[in-house]
Amino acid sequence: MLETPCLMIDLKKMERNIRDMAGIVHKCGVKLRPHIKTHKIPSIAKKQLDGGAVGITTAKVSEAEVMARHGIQDIFIAYPVIGDAKIERVLKLNQTTRLTVGVDSRQGASRLAELAKAAKRTLNVRLEVDTGLKRTGVPYEKAVDLAEAIHSFPSLQLTGIYTFRGALLREEPTRDLESAGLEEGEMAVTLANRIRERGIPLQDVSVGSTPTAAYAARVKGVTEVRPGTYVFYDRMQAELGVCSLDDCAASVLVTVVSRPTEDRIVIDGGSKTFATDIQPNTPPLHLTGFGHVVGHPDIVFERMTEEHGMLKVTKDHPFQVGDRIRIIPKHICSTVNLHNRVTLESGSGENVEWEVSARGHLT
Amino acid sequence: MLETPCLMIDLKKMERNIRDMAGIVHKCGVKLRPHIKTHKIPSIAKKQLDGGAVGITTAKVSEAEVMARHGIQDIFIAYPVIGDAKIERVLKLNQTTRLTVGVDSRQGASRLAELAKAAKRTLNVRLEVDTGLKRTGVPYEKAVDLAEAIHSFPSLQLTGIYTFRGALLREEPTRDLESAGLEEGEMAVTLANRIRERGIPLQDVSVGSTPTAAYAARVKGVTEVRPGTYVFYDRMQAELGVCSLDDCAASVLVTVVSRPTEDRIVIDGGSKTFATDIQPNTPPLHLTGFGHVVGHPDIVFERMTEEHGMLKVTKDHPFQVGDRIRIIPKHICSTVNLHNRVTLESGSGENVEWEVSARGHLT
Repeated sequence: MLETPCLMIDLKKMERNIRDMAGIVHKCGVKLRPHIKTHKIPSIAKKQLDGGAVGITTAKVSEAEVMARHGIQDIFIAYPVIGDAKIERVLKLNQTTRLTVGVDSRQGASRLAELAKAAKRTLNVRLEVDTGLKRTGVPYEKAVDLAEAIHSFPSLQLTGIYTFRGALLREEPTRDLESAGLEEGEMAVTLANRIRERGIPLQDVSVGSTPTAAYAARVKGVTEVRPGTYVFYDRMQAELGVCSLDDCAASVLVTVVSRPTEDRIVIDGGSKTFATDIQPNTPPLHLTGFGHVVGHPDIVFERMTEEHGMLKVTKDHPFQVGDRIRIIPKHICSTVNLHNRVTLESGSGENVEWEVSARGHLT
Repeated sequence: MLETPCLMIDLKKMERNIRDMAGIVHKCGVKLRPHIKTHKIPSIAKKQLDGGAVGITTAKVSEAEVMARHGIQDIFIAYPVIGDAKIERVLKLNQTTRLTVGVDSRQGASRLAELAKAAKRTLNVRLEVDTGLKRTGVPYEKAVDLAEAIHSFPSLQLTGIYTFRGALLREEPTRDLESAGLEEGEMAVTLANRIRERGIPLQDVSVGSTPTAAYAARVKGVTEVRPGTYVFYDRMQAELGVCSLDDCAASVLVTVVSRPTEDRIVIDGGSKTFATDIQPNTPPLHLTGFGHVVGHPDIVFERMTEEHGMLKVTKDHPFQVGDRIRIIPKHICSTVNLHNRVTLESGSGENVEWEVSARGHLT
């Protein structure tokens, strides 16, 4: 019997999610380059590639290194690569992998270009553009000039631009996924055309995210989407209306370790088992609960400390010490990141463990 | 040069914290049994033992297994051990280690007793009592009866009771650490005496926590305290008034990867580098910031996504892309849990890496 807490992946649901997203995106004639931050597992990345993805996206150089070591050939590091040691690692990886890296500043581009030139290599880069998230990404109105500056470096090949959400995560965000997706796509395409007017032959117009991918992909001129969470989905996505709870392929199996009072059960997973980060503009977790208790939608997972989860129950809930329950996490990407391995449920009754190989690869 | 993000431990500060807590506790004639959840590193546990700790505390059986494998002899698993597989592991560990485990329910105690009896072993247990935290722990008023029930199992040796905070974490918590600590200690001692009146020779009255340890240790009859966070301290403890920011031995070294606008810098660490969990009754993190920027107390670390940290700066802050800064995390215990290794700064200029060996040991 499995020991708890244990992160379970339903193979069939995951495969359906992979297939469905590929279908939606391909119908629009757009490429799919999933972000592997959600699973960090090479075998799952390969399933996404087998399902028609053109390559993968990572945030960290170290994640890209793990994926390349497992034979993945086409990787976009959607993050500004800053610091000589990181740039050297990128240049090394570039010798064996079809690599593209993000850039969002003149200083960043300049050092990348210098070290690429010194290594006698040309590096593919994409310009990150901020469409409203206020994270990394050159401000929209400054993007054309920066694109021109990047294009002027002979050792950098500016192949495209990329964005991540925007309208959905603004200070006064829209909850309308369709208009958010369309807006992101249109902003990206308009900008790409302006850059092309300066004589820069951009190929890639790459836009973000699981909740907006299906809509952004419809915009003529968008060439690629980079959703991540869709591989598993989670309660946050279900609350956004992107999926149903039944689509969620990942759940945490936990054990009831205590029922000190009739109205409270305590499970053997807390904030070292379930992620507590949420996206900007999402209500605090103690208001909406830290996860969905499968089969018991009325139970509120209301508090956590590091290794304890406190669930509010009523007399009628039959839970006893030793019972096991399943919980769909609020945010799966950061939840997977807490686990060294996942257990794959194939449906045949035989469970396989997969290591979360790129977990903790922070550099 | 170190790659970022990187969790740095200042050896001298850590050693001072270890020494100071031991001094405070020993002056009261009380034993120190630090909780290793904060560091999860056997070498640091050994420093605590060398500094006078009588043993260590863990939450998980798997953490205890890691520590025992590294030669640590006296371990208290301060958590109800539920499930036959876990109990079997405890019984195995008990063959080579001086082990004590938590119990807080009749069902839990009963199964523990059955399997111990079958293995022809006696297991030391302590009864967990709730003094207000509403987590695990038998409700205070039911503790004497449960103690009697546990005492009746010949294969269990009820050696003591243990509590964790209480007044500090109630729905309307006190911010007065001294009265919280004294109250926890007094509640525990009173209860221990009531249990002794039933003819049960309890030895250990063990109470929690870094913020209350110094006060709880003063209560006559308390025999042991189990602080964890004090080994590093963090911004949350500094805000509670338990330490100064200068006492904090752990910080995260990060790189500025973008300054898209004058008022924002973005660093290469987000919620997969800095923990986002906080204790009950603490204001949400976006209000108080996700960490303290060393040397720049005015800067607010205001937002995070998984790999991005957004800091609000002013024109006067000189940060450029590529600059490095240090951040003292809000909650160090869960932050360490995100890192595979830490870098120890000895002050001699030579840095040593230590693996966070018990990280991700959830079962």
